[in-house]
Amino acid sequence: MTATAVVEPAHRALATKHTTMKALVYHGPGKKAWEDHPKPQIAAPTDAIVKVTRTTICGTDLHILKGDLPSCVPGRILGHEGVGVIDSVGAAVTAFKPGDRVLISCVSACGKCEYCRKGMFSHCTTGGWILGNTIDGTQAEFVRIPHADTSLYPIPERADEEALVMLSDILPTGFECGVLNGKVQPGATVAIVGSGPIGLAALLTAQFYSPAEIIMIDLDDNRLDVAKRFGATAIVNSTDGKAFEAVMKMTGDRGVDTAIEAVGVPATFQLCEQIIAPGGVIANIGVHGVGVELHLEKLWDRNISITTRLVDTASTPMLLKILGAHKIDPKRLITHRFKFHQILDAYETFGDAAKTKALKVIIEA
Amino acid sequence: MTATAVVEPAHRALATKHTTMKALVYHGPGKKAWEDHPKPQIAAPTDAIVKVTRTTICGTDLHILKGDLPSCVPGRILGHEGVGVIDSVGAAVTAFKPGDRVLISCVSACGKCEYCRKGMFSHCTTGGWILGNTIDGTQAEFVRIPHADTSLYPIPERADEEALVMLSDILPTGFECGVLNGKVQPGATVAIVGSGPIGLAALLTAQFYSPAEIIMIDLDDNRLDVAKRFGATAIVNSTDGKAFEAVMKMTGDRGVDTAIEAVGVPATFQLCEQIIAPGGVIANIGVHGVGVELHLEKLWDRNISITTRLVDTASTPMLLKILGAHKIDPKRLITHRFKFHQILDAYETFGDAAKTKALKVIIEA
Amino acid sequence: MTATAVVEPAHRALATKHTTMKALVYHGPGKKAWEDHPKPQIAAPTDAIVKVTRTTICGTDLHILKGDLPSCVPGRILGHEGVGVIDSVGAAVTAFKPGDRVLISCVSACGKCEYCRKGMFSHCTTGGWILGNTIDGTQAEFVRIPHADTSLYPIPERADEEALVMLSDILPTGFECGVLNGKVQPGATVAIVGSGPIGLAALLTAQFYSPAEIIMIDLDDNRLDVAKRFGATAIVNSTDGKAFEAVMKMTGDRGVDTAIEAVGVPATFQLCEQIIAPGGVIANIGVHGVGVELHLEKLWDRNISITTRLVDTASTPMLLKILGAHKIDPKRLITHRFKFHQILDAYETFGDAAKTKALKVIIEA
Amino acid sequence: MTATAVVEPAHRALATKHTTMKALVYHGPGKKAWEDHPKPQIAAPTDAIVKVTRTTICGTDLHILKGDLPSCVPGRILGHEGVGVIDSVGAAVTAFKPGDRVLISCVSACGKCEYCRKGMFSHCTTGGWILGNTIDGTQAEFVRIPHADTSLYPIPERADEEALVMLSDILPTGFECGVLNGKVQPGATVAIVGSGPIGLAALLTAQFYSPAEIIMIDLDDNRLDVAKRFGATAIVNSTDGKAFEAVMKMTGDRGVDTAIEAVGVPATFQLCEQIIAPGGVIANIGVHGVGVELHLEKLWDRNISITTRLVDTASTPMLLKILGAHKIDPKRLITHRFKFHQILDAYETFGDAAKTKALKVIIEA
Repeated sequence: MTATAVVEPAHRALATKHTTMKALVYHGPGKKAWEDHPKPQIAAPTDAIVKVTRTTICGTDLHILKGDLPSCVPGRILGHEGVGVIDSVGAAVTAFKPGDRVLISCVSACGKCEYCRKGMFSHCTTGGWILGNTIDGTQAEFVRIPHADTSLYPIPERADEEALVMLSDILPTGFECGVLNGKVQPGATVAIVGSGPIGLAALLTAQFYSPAEIIMIDLDDNRLDVAKRFGATAIVNSTDGKAFEAVMKMTGDRGVDTAIEAVGVPATFQLCEQIIAPGGVIANIGVHGVGVELHLEKLWDRNISITTRLVDTASTPMLLKILGAHKIDPKRLITHRFKFHQILDAYETFGDAAKTKALKVIIEA
Repeated sequence: MTATAVVEPAHRALATKHTTMKALVYHGPGKKAWEDHPKPQIAAPTDAIVKVTRTTICGTDLHILKGDLPSCVPGRILGHEGVGVIDSVGAAVTAFKPGDRVLISCVSACGKCEYCRKGMFSHCTTGGWILGNTIDGTQAEFVRIPHADTSLYPIPERADEEALVMLSDILPTGFECGVLNGKVQPGATVAIVGSGPIGLAALLTAQFYSPAEIIMIDLDDNRLDVAKRFGATAIVNSTDGKAFEAVMKMTGDRGVDTAIEAVGVPATFQLCEQIIAPGGVIANIGVHGVGVELHLEKLWDRNISITTRLVDTASTPMLLKILGAHKIDPKRLITHRFKFHQILDAYETFGDAAKTKALKVIIEA
Repeated sequence: MTATAVVEPAHRALATKHTTMKALVYHGPGKKAWEDHPKPQIAAPTDAIVKVTRTTICGTDLHILKGDLPSCVPGRILGHEGVGVIDSVGAAVTAFKPGDRVLISCVSACGKCEYCRKGMFSHCTTGGWILGNTIDGTQAEFVRIPHADTSLYPIPERADEEALVMLSDILPTGFECGVLNGKVQPGATVAIVGSGPIGLAALLTAQFYSPAEIIMIDLDDNRLDVAKRFGATAIVNSTDGKAFEAVMKMTGDRGVDTAIEAVGVPATFQLCEQIIAPGGVIANIGVHGVGVELHLEKLWDRNISITTRLVDTASTPMLLKILGAHKIDPKRLITHRFKFHQILDAYETFGDAAKTKALKVIIEA
Repeated sequence: MTATAVVEPAHRALATKHTTMKALVYHGPGKKAWEDHPKPQIAAPTDAIVKVTRTTICGTDLHILKGDLPSCVPGRILGHEGVGVIDSVGAAVTAFKPGDRVLISCVSACGKCEYCRKGMFSHCTTGGWILGNTIDGTQAEFVRIPHADTSLYPIPERADEEALVMLSDILPTGFECGVLNGKVQPGATVAIVGSGPIGLAALLTAQFYSPAEIIMIDLDDNRLDVAKRFGATAIVNSTDGKAFEAVMKMTGDRGVDTAIEAVGVPATFQLCEQIIAPGGVIANIGVHGVGVELHLEKLWDRNISITTRLVDTASTPMLLKILGAHKIDPKRLITHRFKFHQILDAYETFGDAAKTKALKVIIEA
């Protein structure tokens, strides 16, 4: 075995000669820049380097920029969503080769550890949500993807890249944490508290199971209008503090079978506690910064379940099939489009959603 | 159709001529008496009158006596557990006839309503936990059982009545609210917080599923000794406030797959929040009087479930089969025995468990 | 209690004075008549008498007329589907009163026996499929419904009676035996072998779960055209004996996740054996008259399941909610309409479906 | 990076200098030899070479020797069970290093393909049951294990190697194909048809779920005696052809909830068809050489399931935990012990089980 022969499989690569690239780098609370950064290199035989063709911004990125996530340190490239083209792969990667178009999952999974073997990729002992968090992310011209064989998905032929960007995080999150955990069933009554991008993703994917009613609750009339167009059967503006009364009236004082929390603050979780019917499920999607009061003195005998979940993206193959069958149109979530060099504008637009009515923004190479 | 012919099926009865009986009557907070009371009569065609041969006292009875349950008003006969003999049945009762020996379920179920059709008998729209709560109960010589066909169970031949009294409430409660809701699995690690009667019932029934470890946590060394004899693989006395550390050490810092809350106070529920492993289930059995702090800021991404449940007794047929097959010995829960006329002593013994080491007391006709 | 008072609850009735009625009576193989018949009477306190407003004919009725079902003896009124109005109720009926509009379930359920308590109403020890089989059925002006409280459903306000007739049997059969048993999932590939009324009911209800592909297989181009309009994503005319090859080609040689057998002959079941993918489910709906060859020498290591089921109608409440939410339009199954006095024409039309293109026929009072 | 540095991770190895080894080689129907054979080499970066310390013989090995499995060609080393010590690993193996003690799974799993991601390792597109079938197996001094990280398990400290050999195939097979697929539940009635090693493995593992009754059926009184000692609650010698009648009598004419087929011939499968209760499951474990008659004319309305499965060994981590907790003693299956050089004697003893009463034989290095 010669050195040449060894190097080749360890670093099978397109003839890309770049050594630097542009990237969106976090520089501590309130600070970010689109700047030059060394291009990532294969670090383990299971890595792939992906040339990013499209990415987006997540509400979590805004949290990081506020300084809420100590796991993400200054100097980190942000972003955990996107699609792209394989630039190079490590020697142990068998499912992909340079030139392949791929969907990047927001969760990296080794496929080997105790959690991965249960399909709980979010808690992979060497993966989970690390992109744009504990390692560099996708808001860059190139990104290193660990455990590439089990963290990337081949893009189906003729697929629409913009729609696919929605499958990196937001759709599996709404579906797994909200719809699957919430056990949405045909004929059921569902309430979704929060009509932002993630609540709307839950709304779109809840319809896979044909619930009879989907009640959407938010403070913003524009977002409720969007919800109505996306399939909500009823909307409630909770500004008046009477969402509980409204939902109970709509459900004949029974409450809802599934309450999906898609905001992440105590008030919205407690609304879920109030409106849940006996035997129902409260499925939490929201990222909470503080604890909430759980009214066990009222709930102990109500036969309810409460679930939490960091998305596992275990449903990605299923979502790809549904997308391929045109049973869902995730592009409806996209409101704005930018080029990579406009990414600071994209952040501004996304960060001021109340004014810009932004849901998801696409950032294109 | 003659009046005589009609009266017969409406009130098929043993030739019992009693019009009064003895009963344990609640007279407001702190007050109770074993006193004369009118014998109950068939009030609906689906009723049965049962002559009680054995009953017991539940922790909930003590709560009522403290005045904690406004639904139970003075004048009420207490008790929701017991076995007995059918004295008379209403015209629509088809499964039982006078003289049949029966197990009384703590939950009454019509078998017809939306909840009953789902097996969620606890929320039966005309039943649920009503005995010794909103209607007169079983701590009496006779008790009226509504919806008799679906709320009583024929006692298997040669069955031990004392063992069966444990199937009225405590075993199905430990099993359904703790073990089934907690998804106890072969090879799993389970913690049960609270080694009182209900925690011990969860301990006995958890073993139906062969978990690898069952860690029992309590403040009382005597009860922990009992737990050890009943099959706990480890015990933790939490008096030192270090139960969390102890459990994490026992589980290699992983936590437990199932945490069963069998006390009903904030501290024990919060211990469950601390010790639950990613992907685990916290199954609440405890009757809570106040809310608890749910640390969603720590749990939102842990993929856990929290369940609550009022026992449905849907598992009673299964438990009867297991009892018949000698796979469980519920009499191990019985520490003291009394006659009906000694019921005030029974209450005293049961109420002072720390001193008397009482678990369940049998009260015999 | 006076005799008058007793008679009233035992036979609460509208002031209908009929003692005879018209009914479709089976008189042995090949023989039937629309003739005078004594009006049914309350026979048990749980009975109701229903005035039938609309009924239909099932393929099973044709089987009976061929003499295939020995359980159904000459003299029997046929029919197990329909909607109507409560005429009178027995003393123990609590959910309905004369004048109530009701849906009649094809399966009678006591709600009490071991099977009913599991939701397996089809095997109710005193019910199951008895209407128009072992007791008189619904193709008559009046029908006696045993176990009325748990075998009838209140008709929602403003509901369309014709659509509801489809909920007596054909929709729950397609849904429970085909879709639920077949574990149809979002994104899955489903094949339905048989595009008759029952296969089409499976097709309509399979869409509750958003499968990616539904391949419909039949010998009749007209029925395949209907399937296409009802949502099939692909159709296969199996007349050429090459359905297996066609399905494997469509699925990239993988086979289907769910194969629903909706015919009831060996050839169609064996096609399901051939096209099922590893890990898939064959859900049998067909009523089989002879055994089939199960190729365990090929299937033993394929991780498949095969299910059989007599409809339980446990899903009727769910189907009523979905119908109420306009998520399904079962009237699409109705091709012909008749009056009661034309019922023999209705049989002729339904029995010659190849020529008349009949799917379901409505027979109206 | 130097050539030396590269070679090291690609072939991290103990200083074992062997180039040949002894192995049990299949030479066509009826022919086998314990002979010299080249020692296996790392062929892919995910491979490991394991020095076998203990192996055993499976009934499938006897089938191969009869010429029943065309996939296994002459020249193949047989065997798919065993424990050993890692001798060397490929560059991409991260979970094991030379010197580690490991359990060898009978099923190789890549952990990446569509089937592996569902836990259906048996159908891994580059694995499945290949050892001793399509690639060389474990009845040799050394064996090459593909996809080592996801096909080997670290052996817990102080574990008993003989017990662990039972976890390569027979225990997960009995558990997954029989007990899990058969949905064995607390209080249930189970019949196991076939009291050979695999039926006995199902018997041992069925007890994880505390069924009320386990009826063991076989033609051999010795094996039924073993079953009795292993926990069967009843035994039936079916030599008289009256097993059906015996089981129905034992179950009050109801039949069994779970029937486990552990033989693989039409007669035993058809007995399962006869004894299954409505709502029950027939779980096939047997390897069938011919088709069987499925009596759908009797079963179509019985609400039963039939399952088939090639073991996935997805339950191995669970079984390791149960073994570690001493909830099962798989060594009870071991009847004979041999050294590697006596492997032909081991085959003779195992092949003549009726006379030798052999269940599982251990072959030790």
